[in-house]
Amino acid sequence: MTGTVYLVGAGPGAVDLLTLRAARLLAEADVVLHDALVGPEVLALAAKAKLYNVGKRANRPSVDQRLICKLLVRVALRHKVVVRLKGGDPNLFGRASEEIAACRDAGIPLVSVPGISAGFAAASALGVSLTARGVSRSVTFVTPSSARGRVERDMHWADAAAAAETAVIYMGALHAERVTEALIARGVAASRPVVLLESVSADSEHIVRGSLNDLPDLARQLGDGPAIMIIGEAVAEARAALTERDAA
Amino acid sequence: MTGTVYLVGAGPGAVDLLTLRAARLLAEADVVLHDALVGPEVLALAAKAKLYNVGKRANRPSVDQRLICKLLVRVALRHKVVVRLKGGDPNLFGRASEEIAACRDAGIPLVSVPGISAGFAAASALGVSLTARGVSRSVTFVTPSSARGRVERDMHWADAAAAAETAVIYMGALHAERVTEALIARGVAASRPVVLLESVSADSEHIVRGSLNDLPDLARQLGDGPAIMIIGEAVAEARAALTERDAA
Repeated sequence: MTGTVYLVGAGPGAVDLLTLRAARLLAEADVVLHDALVGPEVLALAAKAKLYNVGKRANRPSVDQRLICKLLVRVALRHKVVVRLKGGDPNLFGRASEEIAACRDAGIPLVSVPGISAGFAAASALGVSLTARGVSRSVTFVTPSSARGRVERDMHWADAAAAAETAVIYMGALHAERVTEALIARGVAASRPVVLLESVSADSEHIVRGSLNDLPDLARQLGDGPAIMIIGEAVAEARAALTERDAA
Repeated sequence: MTGTVYLVGAGPGAVDLLTLRAARLLAEADVVLHDALVGPEVLALAAKAKLYNVGKRANRPSVDQRLICKLLVRVALRHKVVVRLKGGDPNLFGRASEEIAACRDAGIPLVSVPGISAGFAAASALGVSLTARGVSRSVTFVTPSSARGRVERDMHWADAAAAAETAVIYMGALHAERVTEALIARGVAASRPVVLLESVSADSEHIVRGSLNDLPDLARQLGDGPAIMIIGEAVAEARAALTERDAA
């Protein structure tokens, strides 16, 4: 009996930002393979499943990814409902393609279920639209981080981020200096508003804000939770709104 | 008594792609103001709410938007839980900023709840990652459509789409010829893979695929449901997978 692998987005962190479909699949799951960042409240929905934490350790991604693919295929050959649970949306910076290919090569059906990516939870937390008439009609999601956690030598990510009116940068806080340099070198104004959000939607959510020029200093104010950065005039109002909130 | 406005993403169409939070808020809602594209199954979750369809009619956006803002403020001054329900995510091409500003100006608290945007539902439907090591580390969401449904004279959207490895184009099917011309003029290969999805995640989902060069022909194969286009090598595998599916 070959099962089905459900590649499911766990959303940004808060358990009630899962989709109804994701919650149902977790309840039905026989086995769940999850990333390190998926929290206990979300995993508690998988009441009858055997859980595997397959979160990657730093600097060992390529070895681990092969092991994850092998484990995924192995459990899917023995169990009916296998959920592969990834933070955010599985198809945005989720390194899903290797696992999709592994299932395809093994003849295992795979069904993907979208999730709320951190960038959208960030916009909601800030109370701003990523797009706005006359302000932004393009939003780019990029990461400057390579598979091994270093900054990419290929600077295509910077070209794409500089060309967009709103740039949402994933896994970039450790490379904040490089991000600032690269964007300013491509003509982005040093005064462009930026907001950094750590652990968005979780109780420990932490937001700092300023201008592109301040990005490295702002990044140093964050802890070690997952962080996202938004750069663009679209977040200018977030700064004002947060200032009001902080003053209240 | 002033209520709270919840600016809620309804997701791409399928009712179980709502978040748990969105479903709970709909169940609690006293009033729901929804767009024309939100389906009856989703609205059925708002069991006790008075429903207002505030979907815009073509070519009358600016008048209608002012009326929507007025209505939103009026109901929030009289009801406790007011849900403003928008297709997809409210903060991506949802024209949310006017409504956020109207609530702020009237002193009405507004809480935003993210939703699954069509681009993510599309990636899941195709079974592909929008990003992949060595293929794409940037995803850009753009629309070539102005507030009045015409093509924007400002071509910034085309610059941003051409700079990204994966471009996800909203409300672009009617302007397919212009999109193709603009991207090819900016150096995008005419052979770059494209996929068009109409009514993604709904029973009437319809997918066509080809190359950038074919985009205008492909767009003519669609009906009048909402359509999204994805352009980039990231969807090359979707073409192969769909071909296998169609052959089966």
